[in-house]
Order: sequence, then C-alpha cells, then structure tokens
Amino acid sequence: MTTITHEARELHQRSIVIDGLEYCRWDRQVFEQLRAGGVTAVHVTIAYWETARETLSRVAEWQRRFREHADLIRPVLSVEDIRRAKAEGRTGIFFGAQNCSPIDDELGLIGVMRQLGLLIMQLSYNNQSLLATGCYEDHDPGITRFGREAIRAMNRAGMLIDMSHSAERSTLEAIELSERPIVISHANPAFFHPALRNKSDTVLRALAESGGLLGFSLYPFHLPGGGDCTLTAFCDMVARTADLMGVERIGIGSDLCLNQPQSVLHWMRNGRWTDTPDYGEGSADNAGWPAQPAWFRDSSYFPNLTAGLLARGFDDNEIAGIIGGNWLRTLETGIRAQTD
Amino acid sequence: MTTITHEARELHQRSIVIDGLEYCRWDRQVFEQLRAGGVTAVHVTIAYWETARETLSRVAEWQRRFREHADLIRPVLSVEDIRRAKAEGRTGIFFGAQNCSPIDDELGLIGVMRQLGLLIMQLSYNNQSLLATGCYEDHDPGITRFGREAIRAMNRAGMLIDMSHSAERSTLEAIELSERPIVISHANPAFFHPALRNKSDTVLRALAESGGLLGFSLYPFHLPGGGDCTLTAFCDMVARTADLMGVERIGIGSDLCLNQPQSVLHWMRNGRWTDTPDYGEGSADNAGWPAQPAWFRDSSYFPNLTAGLLARGFDDNEIAGIIGGNWLRTLETGIRAQTD
Repeated sequence: MTTITHEARELHQRSIVIDGLEYCRWDRQVFEQLRAGGVTAVHVTIAYWETARETLSRVAEWQRRFREHADLIRPVLSVEDIRRAKAEGRTGIFFGAQNCSPIDDELGLIGVMRQLGLLIMQLSYNNQSLLATGCYEDHDPGITRFGREAIRAMNRAGMLIDMSHSAERSTLEAIELSERPIVISHANPAFFHPALRNKSDTVLRALAESGGLLGFSLYPFHLPGGGDCTLTAFCDMVARTADLMGVERIGIGSDLCLNQPQSVLHWMRNGRWTDTPDYGEGSADNAGWPAQPAWFRDSSYFPNLTAGLLARGFDDNEIAGIIGGNWLRTLETGIRAQTD
Repeated sequence: MTTITHEARELHQRSIVIDGLEYCRWDRQVFEQLRAGGVTAVHVTIAYWETARETLSRVAEWQRRFREHADLIRPVLSVEDIRRAKAEGRTGIFFGAQNCSPIDDELGLIGVMRQLGLLIMQLSYNNQSLLATGCYEDHDPGITRFGREAIRAMNRAGMLIDMSHSAERSTLEAIELSERPIVISHANPAFFHPALRNKSDTVLRALAESGGLLGFSLYPFHLPGGGDCTLTAFCDMVARTADLMGVERIGIGSDLCLNQPQSVLHWMRNGRWTDTPDYGEGSADNAGWPAQPAWFRDSSYFPNLTAGLLARGFDDNEIAGIIGGNWLRTLETGIRAQTD
C-alpha cells in the first residue's frame, strides 16, 4: 500500500481536485468514494453513441441523481460551481460526451447541449464521425466540413473540444483550427505505453503550445503492464510529460469505469455500428473490464496520486495544478460563452 | 384610430409589459414591433406537436435569433431576466409549449426542457394528450396517470402549467392537483364569446381562487364579431372579468400569430394526427388566418390596450397589473425550482 504522509494529505485536502473523466455506474457508493478521495469535481461521460434524443434521457437521469444525492454531489455549469462544490464539501459533476453523437447532424444543437451542461465534447470516438476521424480508423483525412463549423460553434458556445479518442491528423487540425485551447481529457503519452489511444510527442507538443491540457489516464489499457503498473512508474511518466509539455499543461483524467456490466463495455465499443464484436483495446480472449492498479482502485484512492507526485519531487504548487488547478484554469477559459 | 393620451403613454412606458402568448413568424420586423409596443417580455410558443427532438431544433433556432438580434431581444430564464430586459430596453423572450409533446412519454424530460428555458407547458392542445384532454374532444376523463406525475414534476421544476387549449374537467382537476397556481395564458371568458376555446365562469372562478392567471386573447376567433370587436367591448369584458376573478388575476395573452403562412396554421391544427383537414376555430370556407382588430394589428399596438383600460376607468396600478405586473408576479412564484 502507498503511504500517504501528513503533508500529502494536507495538500490534497486544501486543493481543488478535478478528475477529467469517469464513466462509472453512478450510485451512492461511487459518490461516497469521490468524497472520500477529496474529488472536488469530475467530468462524467453522458454519451458514447447516444443521439440527441437519447442524450436528453441521460441528462434527465443526472437531474434525478442530483436530487437524490444532493448531500454528496451538485451540478456544475460554470467554474464558480466548482468553487461552490469545494466550499460545500460536495463533488461537482460536469457533463461531457465522448463522441459528437449528441448533436446528431445539426450545428445548432451545440448551443442546446451546452445549455444542458455539456461542457466537453469529443469530435470522434474511435471511428470516423461527422466531424473528425477516430483513433482506430486506418485513414485519417482530418477535420470534415461539418467539423470546421462545429469547432467554431463550440468555441462560441464555450464547449471544450476533446480529442482523446481521435486520430492524429484530426487532432492536430483541431488544435490548429480551434481559437481556444482544447483538451485530451484522458490518455497517456505513447512514449509511456504505445497504445493506439495514447498520444505521440508531436500531438502533445502541439497541444501544449496551444495552451491545451492532457489528462493522464489510469485505465489499465493505457498503462505499461496494465493494472501492474506502479505508482512510481506512473509518476515518472508524469515528470517526463511535464518536461515535454510544461507542468501547467497536465492533469488527471482517470477514465475510471467502475461497476459497469459487460453490456456497457460492449455498448462503448460497438454502439450500433457493427455486428461483429469489436474489442477496442482488449481482445477476444481478454474482452472484459481490466483490473485497476492496486493504488487506484476507485476515486477514494485519489490522495495516492498526490503522495506519489510529492515523492517524485514535484512542489506543492505543481501538484495542486496537476491534481486540479490546471483543469480549473482550462475550464475557466474554455467553457465561457463568447457573449459572456 | 385609438387616441393614446399622454397619461396612457407614460403609464405604458414605465410599466413592465408582458404578452402571455405569441406565435409570430419571428423576424426583425416582429421584434421591432415588440419594441415599438413597449413589450418587456413575451411568451413565445416553440412547440405544438413537436417531439422532444424537434423541440431541440426550435430552441436552436431561438439561440440563433438571440445572437442575430441581440440589440432587440434577450432570453428569459428567470424573472430577473425580465427586469434586465426592461432596464436594457430589449424584449425578453420566454419559451412555452402549447402541448406536452416536448416531453415525449418521459417524465424526466420536464426538468430537461425546463433547463432549456421551457417555462410554460400546456398539458394538452385541442386533442387528448398523454396528460390531459383537449378542448375539442367529445369526452374529458380528466387528468391521466402520467398527467398527475407530470403536474408534480412541473411544480418541482418550476414549469408553469397552462390549460388554454384543455377541456373543462381536465382544467379543473389540474387547478386542484397543482400545488402552484396555474395559468390559462390565452383565452377569453365564454360569457364574452362562446367559443370552445373560451372558458366558463366555473373555470375562471376556480382559476382565480387558486391564485392563477387568465391572459386575454386578441385572436379574432376568441372575440365576438372577430376582427370587428371594438376596443371598448374588449375593455368592458376585462372589467367584467376583473369583477369575477379579481383584477390581480388577469393579464394579456394576445395569441398574435403574424405573418405565418397557411402551412403553419395547417400544422397547428392538424399536426400529424389527421388526414382529413381540421379547421380548428375556422371552417372549410374560412380556413385562413383571421384579420386582427384594427386597434391590435401587431405588438406595436400594445399601448392601445393601456389607453382603452384607462378610458374604461381602471386606475394606474390595476392597469400596470393587467398589462404585465400580474404576469410578472405569477412567473415569480411559478417558475422557481423547488430547490431554489
């Protein structure tokens, strides 16, 4: 087990802690883990392949959770709401989509979804979308005609562009086309582990130069050795990425997907687009959910990251940035509507 | 032409003026008429038969209008926004649905639509709906099982219940079941003109006793003599209704439907529910849009109402209430979410 020093615990407790992506089976236990881990706010996925109409049902489900667990969570529509969550001792929840499916084929739905609290949207999820190419396609022709319009509309509406599951050329073009910094909310550098989902130095440099943010993933398929990856190895990777991108350009996007049944994993990977099972980052003989590292089993283990970063030699300010401050600053500029 | 005295003009200009329903072909000219008429805020219809998905497109269209005509109009999500509109010299726009179609068959969409600014929703439009019976049905079994749930959810979300196009028993039950005052945003007393859309003394008394509001319609089919109805006759009706309901229980809901093509009237009347044309309040040989009274051709004629009410002997406070203050107070209590 990781030892959490008094210093690490104090630093963690006074910081604004933001997890840049989770997709758990949301229930009271998971919300209690977020509180136990001192997580101030978390970016939750509400759509993978869901259409606009289906996304409304996901929002409705969250509105119900906000009522039923009002002692633990609160909705986040602005950065001020994250500060309120900190003051209240609750976890702020902000919505994101891992695909552009919530806007169907309609540009105007970007503003509509933004009004419903969709603060972050990926332009593509693994596959070619109407806007951009996904990271598992063989060919990446870059941002589409609709994609260029969507980037402009997202900039205007204050909806953060996320390229976590997009392919390299599309990602570089999105960074270039967007007038606001974008994010890769949950992925790791390819130098750490050469998964298709992890990102090249070229992408990471371009992201950093444009003022964007990378959220480090704790999803085993994004780690060398999977669930056996050590906290030390993870924090060494953080340090190397800080050297590459700048320490203010990195955060956490744990990609925690706890307690979900296999059917949800199947939906994430296959949506409605294939009859032949796709195993994403897994394989036919390794089709299930991977096991989390022992030092990050759920959100209550968040203080381990602070402890690990302290042990690695980061200073308090740097750590406060990595565990939440950098996300907060990125949201501050990224989710403000242009008319604000 | 109506003579507008200096006194009437001054009273009108300093008042918060609210039109409790319009469904014009929205363009710059109509917004300029609203400004010319000193209208502080207007309840605009965004759905008759539109599903949840279709309603999103209507919201998107309005977001575009808010951007393109920001000098003339602003969105209204709260009563404070109406006060801001007054201070800014703009017309505040708040959304309503004339039917429950925007929530499909899903209770949770009430909260979702409320977040998108749907402040008012009718439980039924002419026909039987999933929630209540419309005023043109032969039989009215009252509020449905889903309807009872919806009333509770609307009360909780702060979405005003509107029974303008509903049948009598459903309306009386909605008044009874709702914990918050409801409205009939656009209709007249049946004693004034016995149209199916106009309301009995029984309904008006129950509405008043529960703290609700009636918005008087200027739609010719709701007036005796149609477009030939005089301002004097209209204001006499207002006075008689004030005696019946109380002067603080009445407002305006002009039902102005300007510049709409016949196809829109056909959609309003027929939706997707009939192959045989239904003419609503018209008839096969009178199927088109009726002509407005000469003293209320469009929103710029609004000061005529103030002048007519002054001439009828109402005092300044009463008139300020009728032309907007009573709507403002009704919205103040009606659109606040229970968690506020």
